[in-house]
Amino acid sequence: MRTPQQPPGNTRRRRRPAAAATAGDNWLWGRHAVAAALANPARRWRRLVVPAVERDAAAALAAAAHAEHLGGGAAVDIVERATINRLLPQGAVHQGWALAVEPLPEPDFDEILRGIAALPDRAIIVVLDRVSDPHNVGAVLRTAAAFGAAAVVVAEHGAPPVTGVVAKAASGALELVPLVRAVNIARTLARLKAAGFWCCGLDAAAPKPLAALDPGSRVALVLGAEGSGLRRLVREECDFLARLPTRPAQPSLNVSNAAAIALYELARRDGDG
Amino acid sequence: MRTPQQPPGNTRRRRRPAAAATAGDNWLWGRHAVAAALANPARRWRRLVVPAVERDAAAALAAAAHAEHLGGGAAVDIVERATINRLLPQGAVHQGWALAVEPLPEPDFDEILRGIAALPDRAIIVVLDRVSDPHNVGAVLRTAAAFGAAAVVVAEHGAPPVTGVVAKAASGALELVPLVRAVNIARTLARLKAAGFWCCGLDAAAPKPLAALDPGSRVALVLGAEGSGLRRLVREECDFLARLPTRPAQPSLNVSNAAAIALYELARRDGDG
Repeated sequence: MRTPQQPPGNTRRRRRPAAAATAGDNWLWGRHAVAAALANPARRWRRLVVPAVERDAAAALAAAAHAEHLGGGAAVDIVERATINRLLPQGAVHQGWALAVEPLPEPDFDEILRGIAALPDRAIIVVLDRVSDPHNVGAVLRTAAAFGAAAVVVAEHGAPPVTGVVAKAASGALELVPLVRAVNIARTLARLKAAGFWCCGLDAAAPKPLAALDPGSRVALVLGAEGSGLRRLVREECDFLARLPTRPAQPSLNVSNAAAIALYELARRDGDG
Repeated sequence: MRTPQQPPGNTRRRRRPAAAATAGDNWLWGRHAVAAALANPARRWRRLVVPAVERDAAAALAAAAHAEHLGGGAAVDIVERATINRLLPQGAVHQGWALAVEPLPEPDFDEILRGIAALPDRAIIVVLDRVSDPHNVGAVLRTAAAFGAAAVVVAEHGAPPVTGVVAKAASGALELVPLVRAVNIARTLARLKAAGFWCCGLDAAAPKPLAALDPGSRVALVLGAEGSGLRRLVREECDFLARLPTRPAQPSLNVSNAAAIALYELARRDGDG
């Protein structure tokens, strides 16, 4: 993620660093992702770009935005659909909605942990080890929001940048669930254990299914890359390993589906089901 | 899906209709999808294309293939990676593996239902109403295989063609779970009910959670398009509706995540968990 402190790499872009990136890294798109960003007081935005048919809806959303508008001119640009296509990465399914934004401020992990310590409810943090597909990271954010997880942690190195692809797959959840970038996942697990979390790694070869385990009221759900799974150092930091009840012919799940099932399993036991 | 009966649209391609499609509709890619296709006796294939580094692995897989080889020349073509990129749709994550195939024969839905009637175990069929994203259809196939569903049904009109994108997301499951294309989803549900199935529609607004319902030993899990959900006629054919225990701030799930959770919930109760 490009932080606001980072100097722009291209002086021609100095005047509008947030809106000029052709790679789409400062654009959000899709109705849910855009509406959620505008509703998020922690978000700063520059331009809302829509076709004429969305003019009234866009004006209403922009007027009601909690996000801070940084733009000098009009908040809403009415353009042809083809123009939106050119602003965004090829193939972006934007539904006529695009928003130029500043990156969210980096979440403060210590503050998140202090907030959890003050609450009596079960708290879940999802930790992704080497998950590089932005669609998967976004989809995990979405289910994390759906089942009330407190944060999603990815590795600073190897995880995808927080682009519009992540935001689109998250369907608004990027604005709801802190996405923490950790320097070292194994050390993050040690830190979580020190904060009272039980670290539960998902592993197709684990002896016990998740449903047979009681992971306690502070749970870090640790999921690895598809195929190679958890790295040894990460696995060794886990307090226990759990599997999901898949068939031998197709034992592995997509990482976002595995996360969804594990989050559901914990929510179900809390009586939410 | 292009069927073998269909004449090729371009006479220059007449000699090799399966291998020439630049849109990738007759190519599978990715190690899992290719290996599963070669292991599937119902599959017919023409060319296995890999870079030199995969030569031995590819030769071994081709020699052990249960799938019928239709190619006139060598089974395995060793090419540069750039050549594979050109054969496949832009952005295809092929991992060095591409296989030119014939489409699978259309599954016989009556035969599937007769097979289920002969078995005492719980049988689940997943029905997708208006799910148009090939990644989602592939991801649902993958979890359907992981949790032993008997088939996945999509609407003939509106569902994506069975391309390499579906196969890649299915990670081999396209060869394991019949993908049935139904002319009319509401009529398919009526047919499933006549065959002893209880039709359970997933709906975020349903009064009861899935975990509180007993859907019986023959279950059709019906999932609608994201956003708009189940169509009225499809909803009315359902015997009951169920929700998943999501939070109000993010009530909707990606359709493949919702399917994964529902399939898990049923597997868990069967003691697989």
